[in-house]
Amino acid sequence: MVREALADHGRVVEVFALPEAAQRHPEIRAAADDAGVTWHLAEERAVSALAETVHSQGLVAVCRFLDRPVDDMLSAGTRLIAVCVDIRDPGNAGTVIRTADAAGADGVVLAGSSVDPYNGKAVRSSAGSLFHLPPALEPDAAGVLARLRGHGLQILAADGTGELLLDDAADSGVLARPTAWLFGNEARGLPPALAQLADDRVAIPIHGRAESLNLATAAAICLYASARAQRRPV
Amino acid sequence: MVREALADHGRVVEVFALPEAAQRHPEIRAAADDAGVTWHLAEERAVSALAETVHSQGLVAVCRFLDRPVDDMLSAGTRLIAVCVDIRDPGNAGTVIRTADAAGADGVVLAGSSVDPYNGKAVRSSAGSLFHLPPALEPDAAGVLARLRGHGLQILAADGTGELLLDDAADSGVLARPTAWLFGNEARGLPPALAQLADDRVAIPIHGRAESLNLATAAAICLYASARAQRRPV
Repeated sequence: MVREALADHGRVVEVFALPEAAQRHPEIRAAADDAGVTWHLAEERAVSALAETVHSQGLVAVCRFLDRPVDDMLSAGTRLIAVCVDIRDPGNAGTVIRTADAAGADGVVLAGSSVDPYNGKAVRSSAGSLFHLPPALEPDAAGVLARLRGHGLQILAADGTGELLLDDAADSGVLARPTAWLFGNEARGLPPALAQLADDRVAIPIHGRAESLNLATAAAICLYASARAQRRPV
Repeated sequence: MVREALADHGRVVEVFALPEAAQRHPEIRAAADDAGVTWHLAEERAVSALAETVHSQGLVAVCRFLDRPVDDMLSAGTRLIAVCVDIRDPGNAGTVIRTADAAGADGVVLAGSSVDPYNGKAVRSSAGSLFHLPPALEPDAAGVLARLRGHGLQILAADGTGELLLDDAADSGVLARPTAWLFGNEARGLPPALAQLADDRVAIPIHGRAESLNLATAAAICLYASARAQRRPV
């Protein structure tokens, strides 16, 4: 993660390292020096407190904020955006950012009253993707949808009770279009008024007896279905 | 979760409930009575300690173990099995069980030195699917693969460095065959010797800059790709 942060020019303010971690990663120390980033040797207690984890890796970077406006994600080539509405679990937020990055998405929006992406657990769950795909933070979810639609993206709401099955959306060519996916709160799903603003409400089929899927796994299935359809049209 | 447990005949030994939780869920109390399960009213401190969570729902069921041998998952209609090897994170184990249930899999095997599925976090992450799809616990991963192959399942290893792309496996019809998916440890992946035992090592394409996917999201993408291919052959 510190390596990814240092690769993002001007992002890192300073680094705190345990002596043994500094020795173990001379290339990270070199990258910090090249970037003109101050490097502090620190003791166990200080690094553990900064890292907020029981088993820290011994390296902590202090970074500038990196969120960006939604408009920064929109260009002529924009095909895939993930919009999370009121998601509360930091591990889910980080995992959605990591998965969106892997799926080649152009951006992630944390809309409504979603969790802070700078929460330590969100940062760690993103596994560096927070730096590859900095999210937009937008309290006004409906406003974001209007902007995305104005840019020519269709809006698909991931909704377990949706009228369109994901497999049908793939087979009919719907998924091949430039798309913004909407993902809702872990317990309550999407606000119904917002789901109604979408072009389609899409359900991942439940073949077994599970009631639903976890948010991050549902997002992974939807984003990868779009990535596949956009690269291999029917 | 307690409702799912009670629906699994003979599984629950006794239930501890806060008075307000008992009032909120009269149908669960009725299900316990119907099943002849002892119902104890308990105080906050006792239920919280049993629940191992900060915000408990106020209901705790004491259950019998429910793991089963791999052979119990094998019948003429068996098409999809998930085998987790040395996975350590209880949240991942529970999420894989929940996702496999949703994808209509016939079973989940926790092989090698995988985490205990009765860990509280694993149980909660499974969201009831632990009762729908009780896992097999098998220290001998290679032995499990031999049994699954002997039953006519192909073995696909989920492997970020694999030689077959998931999308190609779908397009070529490979995914339509009865399949056991192998998923490896969160940090180290699959033991190379075990990955070599698979018929194919399959990589989920990484379109962006993420180094890899989280184990549970990778499993979701693979299991749902198989579920789709088995129901909608090319």
